[in-house]
Amino acid sequence: MDGVVRLADKLARIGDYWQPGIVACLNDYHVKVVKLKGEFTWHAHEQTDELFLVLQGRMTIHLGDGAVTLQEGELYVVPRGVEHKPEATEECHVLLLEPAGTVNTGDNPGDLTHARPEWL
Amino acid sequence: MDGVVRLADKLARIGDYWQPGIVACLNDYHVKVVKLKGEFTWHAHEQTDELFLVLQGRMTIHLGDGAVTLQEGELYVVPRGVEHKPEATEECHVLLLEPAGTVNTGDNPGDLTHARPEWL
Repeated sequence: MDGVVRLADKLARIGDYWQPGIVACLNDYHVKVVKLKGEFTWHAHEQTDELFLVLQGRMTIHLGDGAVTLQEGELYVVPRGVEHKPEATEECHVLLLEPAGTVNTGDNPGDLTHARPEWL
Repeated sequence: MDGVVRLADKLARIGDYWQPGIVACLNDYHVKVVKLKGEFTWHAHEQTDELFLVLQGRMTIHLGDGAVTLQEGELYVVPRGVEHKPEATEECHVLLLEPAGTVNTGDNPGDLTHARPEWL
């Protein structure tokens, strides 16, 4: 019987930073994993909150009025409509949770937009 | 700036097995953590899928036609309506994701029902 998702195996299939892949579907939500390194773009998701759970490494989420730093085993929910900029000095592995169809760059499309993530 | 959820700290606040506590809200979903040991009851959630992510230890989810075993870093989504029975031989720490208001024992209430989980 299958259907078990081993997150480390899924992450091993990702080659590019900032390009999430889908690993599971829960009702109309997608669970994704992504590798981060460097700085992302400032953006907001007007229609949804967005959950970040660090699986390995360390990341910072810059927010308009400050920043939060997450390490392995820590999560943070960016509320809908809140401008944020993820950043990771070293490679960081993250689990993302958001409604299916949520685009990574939100209201600020550009070179890093990955509008149709693949299933890993 | 706060709002960072350290899962290990939240789990340390749980005393009883099979009693999930809420650690985050994402739109109308709750992220919960729970300590498992022993056998739970067979039940199904008629209205929603349910996600299990093992944070520490090992658990089995018995299903009508088999079972899946999850270890640390592995997740599984039980589809809505599917009868299942979680079990853990040794203490196991799990992250759960489901819509707010989902009751742990689903369609089979009993001694283990924990209908109003608290925020940890």
